[in-house]
Amino acid sequence: MIANGEFNFIARHFRPLAGEGSLDLRDDAALIPARPGFELVVSTDTIVENVHFLSDDPAETVSRKLLRVNLSDCAAMGATPFGYFMNVCRPPDRDDRWFESFAAGLAEDQQLFGIHLLGGDTTGIKGPLVLGVTILAWAVAGKAIRRTTAKPGDNVWVTGTIGDAALGLLARRGELPDPDGFLGSRYQLPQPRLGVATAPIVHAGMDISDGLLQDCGHLASESQVNIIIESPLIPLSKQVKAAGADYWPLCLTGGDDYELLLTAPPQNADALRQQAAAAGTDITRIGRVTAGTGEVQLLDANGEAIELAQRGWQHF
Amino acid sequence: MIANGEFNFIARHFRPLAGEGSLDLRDDAALIPARPGFELVVSTDTIVENVHFLSDDPAETVSRKLLRVNLSDCAAMGATPFGYFMNVCRPPDRDDRWFESFAAGLAEDQQLFGIHLLGGDTTGIKGPLVLGVTILAWAVAGKAIRRTTAKPGDNVWVTGTIGDAALGLLARRGELPDPDGFLGSRYQLPQPRLGVATAPIVHAGMDISDGLLQDCGHLASESQVNIIIESPLIPLSKQVKAAGADYWPLCLTGGDDYELLLTAPPQNADALRQQAAAAGTDITRIGRVTAGTGEVQLLDANGEAIELAQRGWQHF
Repeated sequence: MIANGEFNFIARHFRPLAGEGSLDLRDDAALIPARPGFELVVSTDTIVENVHFLSDDPAETVSRKLLRVNLSDCAAMGATPFGYFMNVCRPPDRDDRWFESFAAGLAEDQQLFGIHLLGGDTTGIKGPLVLGVTILAWAVAGKAIRRTTAKPGDNVWVTGTIGDAALGLLARRGELPDPDGFLGSRYQLPQPRLGVATAPIVHAGMDISDGLLQDCGHLASESQVNIIIESPLIPLSKQVKAAGADYWPLCLTGGDDYELLLTAPPQNADALRQQAAAAGTDITRIGRVTAGTGEVQLLDANGEAIELAQRGWQHF
Repeated sequence: MIANGEFNFIARHFRPLAGEGSLDLRDDAALIPARPGFELVVSTDTIVENVHFLSDDPAETVSRKLLRVNLSDCAAMGATPFGYFMNVCRPPDRDDRWFESFAAGLAEDQQLFGIHLLGGDTTGIKGPLVLGVTILAWAVAGKAIRRTTAKPGDNVWVTGTIGDAALGLLARRGELPDPDGFLGSRYQLPQPRLGVATAPIVHAGMDISDGLLQDCGHLASESQVNIIIESPLIPLSKQVKAAGADYWPLCLTGGDDYELLLTAPPQNADALRQQAAAAGTDITRIGRVTAGTGEVQLLDANGEAIELAQRGWQHF
């Protein structure tokens, strides 16, 4: 479904971003050669104006967030991304200049992460801006990291710090001070933790997009184990600490972290730390996996179980 | 980005549609094993309420159209589809019952076309229903059909009949009678012409989604040839003929045909006809390819060039 207006729009903004396999965005589809010994990892995420980003977020961070939420899925699978498809539903109020900045953001992250545009489509919409990416990555055959393979005895780890983005959304809405802009930037620009989750160092993993506790629940449930989190171990940024303890429950249930939640046997702790350091991120042990049927327990500093009112957030 | 409400929604409606590689829709991504000797063909199209379908179109035809516009791209590439990713942006007014019918339509076409769901995401939207599919198909390495390889001396062919869907949209809007419902059904339910475009019988091809004349222009331009169409040869359904000659220009420029536009050397005419018959579609020679630089000429019954006011339609 390509019309002339769309053709020109694509040629101006997106053709410069296209690479191998895209057929220069001129055909009905992209062509990806087989890569024997590897599995193709494919993930897709759509972001919607005023659901996943704010109307006045800068175009560059909107496009980079769009890529990064998908890159984060590749990171979670232990896969190396190489290209992506993009779907743009463009409302009349987003002009060409906005898309110039949008494409500049894509170009910057393409270079940073070694990926290129493979294809996509654009269409008009009378409604919010809707942006989708389907990302393609390679994993060594049999080595992709799953959610189903956490083992009792594993430690539970998270990369980076937790809750910055949840408070960043409050800050962006003017509901929380953010003197150095750190919290807001963590909401606008996730850091996909590529290169940290690799087999056999890591047993299981996923990215944290809907809140640490809810995603622990998913991991526990998919692996049919229990997960015990020691809340004092959860890594918080100094900015989250400064916001005060009243905000910390939200940090454990709010979305948009895009950090990795991983499990690994205790003897792999050093290897995992080295891998994380090489990838440029901190990694912190926050708990352990026990035999069970999908429960998550959150312990306070005294080892007593605590209950949070809300776990994660709902899309509808 | 998966929350509990979304989890249940996916489990209810979409998990039954998932197949090999989908990891049961439970992980961060899908895993597609390599298939040596084949190239992966990937195409993506988004359809938007009140742009590509009408608000009161039945849910089953909306979902089937969503799949079929993408299947049509596979057909155009000479590729065999096997799976798809789906992105759903769901406004509050689309209830569970609607999505039950939507999923039933997907299930029906999955069986018909031998494909299954590989992954996707769902999110809320305050605006129109937005539905995206990214489809995956296999093409024998080096045998995918491109838009770039039409050769002077080729004949130009189209499958099926042209313009039914453009008039079908008028009919659906109450602007044209449609006594047997044929035109409306052609708008709501395209017929992807899988199995017709194969190398080396066919030299070049694409699907007709934005109007025959405009898509001829794309093919001519991408192949750097001219295309001459003899308008009396263009296949029209009896319903389009009954609508009267005033409507025929719209048939050549209106969108949503999802028929194939192919070029093939004259000596392959019989082989192409047999291939089309085996695929269950008529195929008609409508013109020829000449040396040139991307022009399209439309001839009348006397061989005189004619000009249409509008070529195709614009997305924005």
